[in-house]
Amino acid sequence: MSQRQLHLNLNFIGAGTHSGAWRWPGNRADAFLDPDYLVEVAKIAERGTFDAIFLPDRPAHPDRSGTGPFPALEPTLVLATIAAATRHIGLIATVSTSYNEPYNIARRIATLDHLSRGRAGVNLITSADLPSAANFGLDAVPEHAQRYRRAIEFAQVLQALWESWGEGALIADAQSGKFIEHDKVRPIHHEGEFFRVRGPLNLPRSPQDKPVLVQAGGSDDGLELAAAHAELVFTAAHTLDDAQAYATKLRQRAQALGRSPNAIAILPGLVTIIGSTEAEAREREAALWELSSLEQGLKWLGGILQVDASGFDLDQPLPAGIPVPVNGSTTFARNLLAKAYQPGVTLRQLLRTRGGGANNHRAIVGTPEQIADDIIEWFSSGAIDGFNLMPIILPSGLEDFVDHVVPILRHRGVFRHEYEGTTLRAHLGAPSI
Amino acid sequence: MSQRQLHLNLNFIGAGTHSGAWRWPGNRADAFLDPDYLVEVAKIAERGTFDAIFLPDRPAHPDRSGTGPFPALEPTLVLATIAAATRHIGLIATVSTSYNEPYNIARRIATLDHLSRGRAGVNLITSADLPSAANFGLDAVPEHAQRYRRAIEFAQVLQALWESWGEGALIADAQSGKFIEHDKVRPIHHEGEFFRVRGPLNLPRSPQDKPVLVQAGGSDDGLELAAAHAELVFTAAHTLDDAQAYATKLRQRAQALGRSPNAIAILPGLVTIIGSTEAEAREREAALWELSSLEQGLKWLGGILQVDASGFDLDQPLPAGIPVPVNGSTTFARNLLAKAYQPGVTLRQLLRTRGGGANNHRAIVGTPEQIADDIIEWFSSGAIDGFNLMPIILPSGLEDFVDHVVPILRHRGVFRHEYEGTTLRAHLGAPSI
Repeated sequence: MSQRQLHLNLNFIGAGTHSGAWRWPGNRADAFLDPDYLVEVAKIAERGTFDAIFLPDRPAHPDRSGTGPFPALEPTLVLATIAAATRHIGLIATVSTSYNEPYNIARRIATLDHLSRGRAGVNLITSADLPSAANFGLDAVPEHAQRYRRAIEFAQVLQALWESWGEGALIADAQSGKFIEHDKVRPIHHEGEFFRVRGPLNLPRSPQDKPVLVQAGGSDDGLELAAAHAELVFTAAHTLDDAQAYATKLRQRAQALGRSPNAIAILPGLVTIIGSTEAEAREREAALWELSSLEQGLKWLGGILQVDASGFDLDQPLPAGIPVPVNGSTTFARNLLAKAYQPGVTLRQLLRTRGGGANNHRAIVGTPEQIADDIIEWFSSGAIDGFNLMPIILPSGLEDFVDHVVPILRHRGVFRHEYEGTTLRAHLGAPSI
Repeated sequence: MSQRQLHLNLNFIGAGTHSGAWRWPGNRADAFLDPDYLVEVAKIAERGTFDAIFLPDRPAHPDRSGTGPFPALEPTLVLATIAAATRHIGLIATVSTSYNEPYNIARRIATLDHLSRGRAGVNLITSADLPSAANFGLDAVPEHAQRYRRAIEFAQVLQALWESWGEGALIADAQSGKFIEHDKVRPIHHEGEFFRVRGPLNLPRSPQDKPVLVQAGGSDDGLELAAAHAELVFTAAHTLDDAQAYATKLRQRAQALGRSPNAIAILPGLVTIIGSTEAEAREREAALWELSSLEQGLKWLGGILQVDASGFDLDQPLPAGIPVPVNGSTTFARNLLAKAYQPGVTLRQLLRTRGGGANNHRAIVGTPEQIADDIIEWFSSGAIDGFNLMPIILPSGLEDFVDHVVPILRHRGVFRHEYEGTTLRAHLGAPSI
């Protein structure tokens, strides 16, 4: 296949991206805790030959704003469960670099790579929220630049530990009794601002040599992390111009650091609401909207903007003059404010464009053809390499995508008909460096 | 069934307890990294209606002393893999309290409890070795008492986080849209010597309410941790008198802390070498001995006693005057020195009684009848509640136990014929407190 190929991940969130999805008729409201459900959804994505399952995470309870499923089960364990029931699909776990030790994470992700025979990836985030900080002994969220310095050093330690077992270091020759080529297993002696790690890893080199490193978040600090270490980036882009501008900046920066500009796959989030007609898709969206909570929407908005939004009037625009918070999720806040301050937009309308107030990504509503057209338009621009798909409702919204959108993408020659390899790197076309 | 029942765990170590086991004809030397092998062994233990799989751990590379499989894959992920392929057997992961945050571990173990539908347990260790310390920024192992103060506080935080979701807190009622009863989910506001954790856990109460807490290690500090928090204790006892003395001390201490003296199941380690005749068992042991490394044995001994043993003469006794190290694995060192300083014991003989120098537990060599007799004798004394079994070789040594020893134990009325419940607590007869 010579044509450039699209990459698709499933961003697997509870019952779907929409905050009303868990109440959808036929869905089990507590399915987000059920291993059979997790495996069922993963198998649908594997049937659609997706590159990977992507699990978000946040190491804190959503508190009183939580009115639906949230990232509860720990991602690496969920992915080990999914690995046991699948053969091909990649497995990407989100991990906070602020509240973990790199030795433990290097080991857990390499373990997942062994257990899945080469399908593991890790998405490094810095955790911008206070409730997470308070679970790890802190009174305040560490400042943005410091969090990212730690994340970059964290990524360096992961890479060094994954390289600490040279090729052929595990001999395991019963005849001679030689188990390890000790000279090929080397301490890393890392000493940095945040970590001192002697190494080596206590785990032989994993099937991918190194699991895939993923980064999410579009601040300048985040871009620096992505340019230096990421092989896949999960971005938020609401216009093709934005996506193009980000891609140019990221690829230039990667090149300046000596990497190939094409070494990084860029996948924006994309919320999909599918119907057999556009009207049906819009009806589905409206029906979900009826099941979602405006109260939660306001709390979510308050969280992103770091203001108390509980008293805001839903039929008025967002009060003027709210700045991008200094120490939060910069990209999300910037995108949200840009939309909120468009003329005549009420809070109710703003929340509604956000799938019930539970996400920060671009949404498309339409038929399989419309959705495939949109995907191919963005992909063909060259700005992006695919999407982190966020079906508005699971499993049905994913089934619709796999059964009706994927065949169009295949027919147009931009997406695989079957897996050509068994590792995440093979799906991404990313050699381990 | 009214008779008091025996509890059996499989202490799952690579290719078996013996350091030569990975070289045994027919065994694959790299099987310790293979998920199919892990599942195969677990299924044999489940066929034998064992209470649980117990995975040891050490977050550091064994360095140059490693001449065989070692705890490489991270235990909680291995157990998630096993959970997906089994229905009944309990799943106990060893975790270092010195090099983890309690919020992360509370969440991972509760996640395992959800994914396995109530079969999770966690064995808290303090990690007495320098290589582990050096992977987490330290130049020295924290002193013994401090490690255990941290472990006790760690256990308190785990318990509090597991209790932070009250019964019925997860509503998940699609009809009303009520997802969480927020008043039943409470922060823990823990502030101690080592940890400050706000909570609550970001995970609804798990099937066992609280996963099972396990402790291993017999120092006074360890006993304090066990008496206060453990529901299962993995001990090392070489004589029934020792086991009796330890049990009396532990049960008295638990009672003084207001717990029932029978709330703790005591399971010493037991290495088994099985043959259809005693001579066959001894031949098997001798054949394994031929496959093991004396060099590794000396390094292992040096590690326990914190001396350089590489120059010691194997045909002489251990040099006189070596003390129990102040800051190490106290029980292991004490047991080892007691045996080493018996009159006339050479180093070669000492290492040989240790299954090739790779373990610290009592070993029995014999027929299924002899092994069953021994187990029942210890069990009937009342000092112990069962064993953490360490087959000298896997999977064949475990198959021998399940096919030939388990039927005798069942016939004599001390061991279950089938599982009566589906949770680890049910197997242990341990209500969640």
